[in-house]
Amino acid sequence: MNIGGEEIAHPNTFEHYISWIKVYFKPEGGNFPIEVGAYDFAAHGEYDVFTEPSVTLKFKAEKSGTILATSYCNIHGLWENSQELVVED
Amino acid sequence: MNIGGEEIAHPNTFEHYISWIKVYFKPEGGNFPIEVGAYDFAAHGEYDVFTEPSVTLKFKAEKSGTILATSYCNIHGLWENSQELVVED
Amino acid sequence: MNIGGEEIAHPNTFEHYISWIKVYFKPEGGNFPIEVGAYDFAAHGEYDVFTEPSVTLKFKAEKSGTILATSYCNIHGLWENSQELVVED
Amino acid sequence: MNIGGEEIAHPNTFEHYISWIKVYFKPEGGNFPIEVGAYDFAAHGEYDVFTEPSVTLKFKAEKSGTILATSYCNIHGLWENSQELVVED
Repeated sequence: MNIGGEEIAHPNTFEHYISWIKVYFKPEGGNFPIEVGAYDFAAHGEYDVFTEPSVTLKFKAEKSGTILATSYCNIHGLWENSQELVVED
Repeated sequence: MNIGGEEIAHPNTFEHYISWIKVYFKPEGGNFPIEVGAYDFAAHGEYDVFTEPSVTLKFKAEKSGTILATSYCNIHGLWENSQELVVED
Repeated sequence: MNIGGEEIAHPNTFEHYISWIKVYFKPEGGNFPIEVGAYDFAAHGEYDVFTEPSVTLKFKAEKSGTILATSYCNIHGLWENSQELVVED
Repeated sequence: MNIGGEEIAHPNTFEHYISWIKVYFKPEGGNFPIEVGAYDFAAHGEYDVFTEPSVTLKFKAEKSGTILATSYCNIHGLWENSQELVVED
């Protein structure tokens, strides 16, 4: 799943970085987004270690629905995206 | 990177699940493990959504060192593993 | 700061609990909510340990603005509240 | 509960700060520390917002045991402390 789809890389420096991504799934007909996972990218140059702000994850769902992702940049605040997930019989 | 290497799957049910993985990197000659990332697996059956307790991540390091991973199961508590990382010139 | 203000207690059981609270602050005239803190309530009955889903926190701000709080219940999903913060000279 | 007990304040700047505290409880006779909570202090000067790295939390336990706290400073790495908790009949 790549729900970002950016072609322009975001900075990843001590001063300016993506801090975390949270992923939710809202099943069709459901009222609430279910939290799937939360991913914190912690190193931004300390001792020359840099965590890349990307993650590959897996989850199971019984129904189709919408994947929602929120992300936080320490300078630009919250970002949001979504993508439909179709579960076939 | 697969630092688990288990051959036996851990349960992933509402009652018994792996809650999170935290990854650190201790550069050679350094005194401290640097936190690389923290990954929370949040869904354990709510509305039939199950997050698999695995993650693929990327980070950059200038030096060789040791990757440390800690993980938490709600029933069995903390788990720990490590693997050497060799950075070639 | 008590931005919840509920008079009815939320359940805190193994099956139904508040999982976390995230707090943001949006300074007046600013474009983005700044993340202040994230607080995960982890124990919901494992070995008879229950974390109460409340937290007291402190932060400093130079300007007035709006405190935003989001919270997640494993059954009822996301909840949101806000409160104005006035910084006096 | 104040299990820190330091008399010297830790810096809280953009370059050097306490990132998080995780709290566990190990009941007497139990084999595992149970995670009670995880508290991320997120703002370190962005738009003049500073989260103080302290937290007040509550949890219930049926038995006496040991409270364990780990904390992470972006420069000095992991820190650990513990305190006995006595549950009276």
